[in-house]
Amino acid sequence: MSYATLQTLRWSHDGLYLLDQRKLPQVEEELLCADLASVVSAIKEMVVRGAPAIGVTAAYGVVLAYRQFGREADLTRLRMARPTAVNLNWAIDRMQPVLRSASSEDVVLREAIKIHKEDIATNQKMGDLGASLLEPGSNVLTHCNAGALATAGYGTALGVIRTAHTQNKLGQVYADETRPWLQGARLTAWELLRDQIPVTVIVEGAAAWLMKQGKVDWVITGADRVAANGDAANKIGTYALALAAKAHGVKMMIVAPSSTIDLECSSGNLIEIESRSGEEILNLNGERIAAEGATAWNPVFDVTPAELITAIVTEKGVIKYPKTPKHCLVS
Amino acid sequence: MSYATLQTLRWSHDGLYLLDQRKLPQVEEELLCADLASVVSAIKEMVVRGAPAIGVTAAYGVVLAYRQFGREADLTRLRMARPTAVNLNWAIDRMQPVLRSASSEDVVLREAIKIHKEDIATNQKMGDLGASLLEPGSNVLTHCNAGALATAGYGTALGVIRTAHTQNKLGQVYADETRPWLQGARLTAWELLRDQIPVTVIVEGAAAWLMKQGKVDWVITGADRVAANGDAANKIGTYALALAAKAHGVKMMIVAPSSTIDLECSSGNLIEIESRSGEEILNLNGERIAAEGATAWNPVFDVTPAELITAIVTEKGVIKYPKTPKHCLVS
Repeated sequence: MSYATLQTLRWSHDGLYLLDQRKLPQVEEELLCADLASVVSAIKEMVVRGAPAIGVTAAYGVVLAYRQFGREADLTRLRMARPTAVNLNWAIDRMQPVLRSASSEDVVLREAIKIHKEDIATNQKMGDLGASLLEPGSNVLTHCNAGALATAGYGTALGVIRTAHTQNKLGQVYADETRPWLQGARLTAWELLRDQIPVTVIVEGAAAWLMKQGKVDWVITGADRVAANGDAANKIGTYALALAAKAHGVKMMIVAPSSTIDLECSSGNLIEIESRSGEEILNLNGERIAAEGATAWNPVFDVTPAELITAIVTEKGVIKYPKTPKHCLVS
Repeated sequence: MSYATLQTLRWSHDGLYLLDQRKLPQVEEELLCADLASVVSAIKEMVVRGAPAIGVTAAYGVVLAYRQFGREADLTRLRMARPTAVNLNWAIDRMQPVLRSASSEDVVLREAIKIHKEDIATNQKMGDLGASLLEPGSNVLTHCNAGALATAGYGTALGVIRTAHTQNKLGQVYADETRPWLQGARLTAWELLRDQIPVTVIVEGAAAWLMKQGKVDWVITGADRVAANGDAANKIGTYALALAAKAHGVKMMIVAPSSTIDLECSSGNLIEIESRSGEEILNLNGERIAAEGATAWNPVFDVTPAELITAIVTEKGVIKYPKTPKHCLVS
C-alpha cells in the first residue's frame, strides 16, 4: 500500500472497508464491515478511532443499517458505541432523517459520501487556518493521533502539521507515544514518515521537560468534543500537556471540525468521559506486566479548560483564547 | 521467594547477588556478580536501579575490585557506570580510602556492609519522618520505583508509604506506570502488593487528570540527585507531576537520603542528565512499535525546581519548602 492509496476507510458495494488501526504500523490490513453490528463492534474495538473518522464510519454504518433493516433501522447501538466523541452523534443526527425518508440505498449512501468528502475538505481548510498561526521554524508537539487515520483523510492536528510542512514553516515535530494505546508511536509516526515529515517520539513524562528545554513552540492536538465554553475533551494526557504548556509559555492549539463543537454542552464538566478496562494498562502485547492483584484507572479522555487553550481551529474560523461568548464562535 | 526473603541485593562469599529487576514481576531471579566488570555492567544494564541501591551495589563492587586487583584497583569504570545518581560517587568516595589502605578483604567488606545497613536504617528513619507529614486518609501518587528495590531495603518514597500504611494513615496509592521502563507497573505494584498495600496503576498522561478529580493529596517520589538549592533530579516525568501538583494544590514530597544531596552542585541546572537509547521507546518487549525511520528522545531524568517541592525528607530531617539556604539543610 503506497501513500497514495492510504485510506482510513472506503466504501465499496459489499460494505465499509476499515484500515485495521490496531495492527499498524506492522500490518496494513483492511477489515470489511458488511453489516451494522460489525460497524458498531469496529468502533468499540478501536479498529477505527479518532472522532471525525468515527463520525464518517457511523454515516456508512447507517447505509448498512438501511440495507439490512430499511427505514426503521434501530441506530441506538451505533449511537452508544463510544460515548465521548460527539461526531458520532452528529453524523447519526444528520443521517437519520435521510434514512427515515429514503426511497433507496443510493439516497442514504449519497449523504454518507457527502459527509465523507466534507470531512476531507474541512481538514484541508483547518490545515490552512492552523498553519497560518505558526511562525516559520515552529517546533510542535502532538499527542495521540489526530491525523488522516483519525479522520476521513488529511487529519486535524496532523493536517495543520502537513500544511505547515508544505509551507516550509515546520521545525521539529515531536509525538507523544500516548499510552496506553500508543497511537503516537504506532500511528502518528507512521503517518508523518509516509509524508517524509521527520518525527521524534517521546514518552508523555518527557513532554514538560522538553518544553523546559525550549524545544516546543506549539502543542497541537485534535479534540473529541468541545463544549460551548471552549473546554475541550481529548485523549488522556492532553490536559497535562496544556498545564505544562501554560507553565512554559508554549501555545496550545486544538484543531477540530465544527461538528466536534457541542453547543448543547455548556461546559467541559458535563462531558461524559469514557473509561476503558484497566487491562489495557496492566497488559502489554497480550503479556501481563503488572503484578497480579494490581488495579488500573483508565480514563480515555480528559478535559482541557478553555483558559489553557490559545486557539481552537475549526473549518469555519479560528477561535483565539476561547474564553469568549458563543456568538464569537465563528470568526 | 516469600516477602521475608525479598532482597534487592545480598553479599555472599562468591560475590554480590542482585535480584534481576529487568525480569520482574514475572521472574524472580538473582544474578551473581563475581567481579568488578559484572557489577559495572549490571548497573549499566539496569539489573539494579534506583540511586541508593546503585550506591550499595557500588560499595560491594569495591570489595570485588579489591579481591581482583588489590589496593590499586581502578574504580573509574564503576564511577562512570551511570552519570546521574550521586549515591554512586558518594559510595565510591567512602569506599576508596578504605580500599587504598586495606590489609584484607574483610576490612573492605566491613565498610560495604556498614553502608548497606545504614541505607536500610536511613530508609526507616525517612519513613517515619515522611509519614508524619501525612494527614490520615491521604491519597498518594508515586512515580517510578523508589522502593525496597531501589534501595538496600524498605525504600525511600515507598518507605514513607509503608510506614503510613502501618500507621493506618494511607488512603489510596496510585502508581504511574513510568515509561519507558515501566518501573511503576512492574516493580512498585509488585512491591506494594507483597506488603498487602492495594495499588492502582495509571499512565503518566492521566496523573494531572487524577489530581483534577481531587484524588491526590501528596505526590511522593525519590530522587537521584538533589542540588544544594533543593532542585531534585528524578525519573523523567517527575517534573511534569510537580507542575501538575502545583496547579492543583497537591503537595510534593521528595524522599532521599542525605547521600543523595550534592552540596557541590549549586543548582539543578548543573546536574548531568543521562540519555539512553531511543530504542527503549521505539521497541516494546523486543518488538518494534514505531514506524521505521522514527527517532526518539529518551532522557532518563528531569529536574524539579525547589519552588515546586513542598518537602524534602532526609534521614537527618525534613526540609520544608526547600528554597532555603544551605545551612538550614539539616533541621
